[in-house]
Amino acid sequence: METELSKRLGIEHAIFGFTPFPAVAAAISRAGGMGVLGAVRYSDADELARSLDWMEENTGGRPYGLDVVMPAKKVEGVSEADIEAMIPEGHREYVRQVLAKHGVPELGPDDVSGWRITGWMEQVARNQLDVAFDYPIKLLANALGSPPADVIARAHEHDILVAALAGSARHAGHHKDAGIDIVVAQGYEAGGHTGEIASMVLVPEVVSAVEGIPVLAAGGIGTGEQVAAGLALGAQGVWLGSVWLTTTEAELPSQVLIDKLLAAGSGDTVRSRALTGKPARQLRTEWTDAWEDPAGPGTLPMPLQGLLVADAVSRIQKYETEPLLGTPVGQIVGQMNSERSVQAVFDDLTRGFERAVDRINRIAGRA
Amino acid sequence: METELSKRLGIEHAIFGFTPFPAVAAAISRAGGMGVLGAVRYSDADELARSLDWMEENTGGRPYGLDVVMPAKKVEGVSEADIEAMIPEGHREYVRQVLAKHGVPELGPDDVSGWRITGWMEQVARNQLDVAFDYPIKLLANALGSPPADVIARAHEHDILVAALAGSARHAGHHKDAGIDIVVAQGYEAGGHTGEIASMVLVPEVVSAVEGIPVLAAGGIGTGEQVAAGLALGAQGVWLGSVWLTTTEAELPSQVLIDKLLAAGSGDTVRSRALTGKPARQLRTEWTDAWEDPAGPGTLPMPLQGLLVADAVSRIQKYETEPLLGTPVGQIVGQMNSERSVQAVFDDLTRGFERAVDRINRIAGRA
Repeated sequence: METELSKRLGIEHAIFGFTPFPAVAAAISRAGGMGVLGAVRYSDADELARSLDWMEENTGGRPYGLDVVMPAKKVEGVSEADIEAMIPEGHREYVRQVLAKHGVPELGPDDVSGWRITGWMEQVARNQLDVAFDYPIKLLANALGSPPADVIARAHEHDILVAALAGSARHAGHHKDAGIDIVVAQGYEAGGHTGEIASMVLVPEVVSAVEGIPVLAAGGIGTGEQVAAGLALGAQGVWLGSVWLTTTEAELPSQVLIDKLLAAGSGDTVRSRALTGKPARQLRTEWTDAWEDPAGPGTLPMPLQGLLVADAVSRIQKYETEPLLGTPVGQIVGQMNSERSVQAVFDDLTRGFERAVDRINRIAGRA
Repeated sequence: METELSKRLGIEHAIFGFTPFPAVAAAISRAGGMGVLGAVRYSDADELARSLDWMEENTGGRPYGLDVVMPAKKVEGVSEADIEAMIPEGHREYVRQVLAKHGVPELGPDDVSGWRITGWMEQVARNQLDVAFDYPIKLLANALGSPPADVIARAHEHDILVAALAGSARHAGHHKDAGIDIVVAQGYEAGGHTGEIASMVLVPEVVSAVEGIPVLAAGGIGTGEQVAAGLALGAQGVWLGSVWLTTTEAELPSQVLIDKLLAAGSGDTVRSRALTGKPARQLRTEWTDAWEDPAGPGTLPMPLQGLLVADAVSRIQKYETEPLLGTPVGQIVGQMNSERSVQAVFDDLTRGFERAVDRINRIAGRA
């Protein structure tokens, strides 16, 4: 499965796999794709360095990438404490009520809240980049907006291609103007932050809007047939995130959560602001319902919402409170029905792709 | 572009075109696809017969189909007047306020309200079918739920294949159990009544859920590349509705509306209950906004909402009140940027499909 972009990056298959887990990212690269490690959970730069050391030892010299979250809007000279202080007490009380209703215990004195806002702040992302540029990463992706010009320039000095996610053709056009190398067109059906335009419409619109820049199709892709569809729409590769969550290499915090993912149907996700303040597709839970409830206070804007709920999310994960337990995931969760190794997922993707190509050729009268 | 289904139906290309306009349906059939005439606007069975006579004279002997709207739930012995009486006065007053705000004049004494609820009632659909079975139609589609068993049996006696639209795999399974021949998997991005699962995910789920029954991909398809994507997902054909609205053969009531369609982007639609009481994708207008407004009364359930707004929609169309003027249309409206003949659309579809097949073969290393 070769495109101009996959050749340029030196990967066998034009399949890009985003994951927060180094073991998954390395396995994707070893399987012939481009493993892209999500950096948002590394608020400590040394911890990121240790993970990248591990990647170096476990990718067998194959290319891999890093995904940072650098918000488009700068928040200069504002500390986490300043932002904490902006959260209304009524919202804090609502979080306490929802957790109490489900009997979620407090964290212990030694527990650290696992999912903090800090990874979303520019200074943290910049510290991550200072570390990352010491490693031979091949791709730097940014999940929120275009990276700043100096970051793009530094990446290019290191022969790193820069990718940015876009949920609309207009958004993609801004990325092109900013000088990025790859646009990830992320459709409505995708897990995580996503817009309202479905992949079937978004991908060709973005391809046309950024003519000359390669586009990856993201959202709704978890089988080889979906890979073929994404490529038929004009993409030079596909970007998959959700499908890796139920691989044997993934390190989800809870078996209850894994079981929920395996049982969920495509209709069991929701685009909700509950986790970050921006619409992100995730499992629909009593937690997301609580933030839709007209009797509740509703969500706060990013980055307040993420800070508001960080401890609560850690508690829900630690105590595996089933009705509240969720994760970002796309509509393809309905097709994630068994735990497989990354290599097995990859084999299914390439075999399914070949089947789809056979099928299309028969329909076109070329078989 | 041949599949088992297209061969069985005797059409050259596995492209199904839904349209309320006989001239468009006939042109689609003449171009080698399956023109499917929407019957909902024919509350008078004689008028439907005249349109079908016209189709007979203008399809050159090519196959064509009919789309009726037969609600899954029967409403026995209830007249339009009975339903009218169930509409709260507050809702009627709200309609008057919205129209007054935009200075929309009353209909004249000779004007007939063009879009009535009657086409949605089972008795009307049954009268339509009594007419339709006298014509050599090849396909009978139902837009709301599975048709009743006796209707399916009558269709099969006339060698007519029966299709039903589905927005979820579960819904598609019910159609299979009811004995229908074709499932139209209609994704989130489609115009008109639609669910929340995007085509990229829905189509393969439905293909798998109704194994053995051919599936058509609907939603987000307006170019040949999108046709190829739909077929790669396992569909035996594609079902297009929106793309015909801006063809030269279409008979939209207003040039202002045509201009709005040509100017709209993919983000200018909304899934709204404003027109029928069920979520239907349409242009976002001040009319749809009015029904989302928390200060308003909100929408009524089907069929009340449709009856409530029928006269208002006719007035908005007649007086071309730009801010309120809309139509059901899918997210591909962003790609509908010029008026073309049906034949030109068809040529673009088949050429784009061949381009996509070339492209996929190059990526697969088969070119």
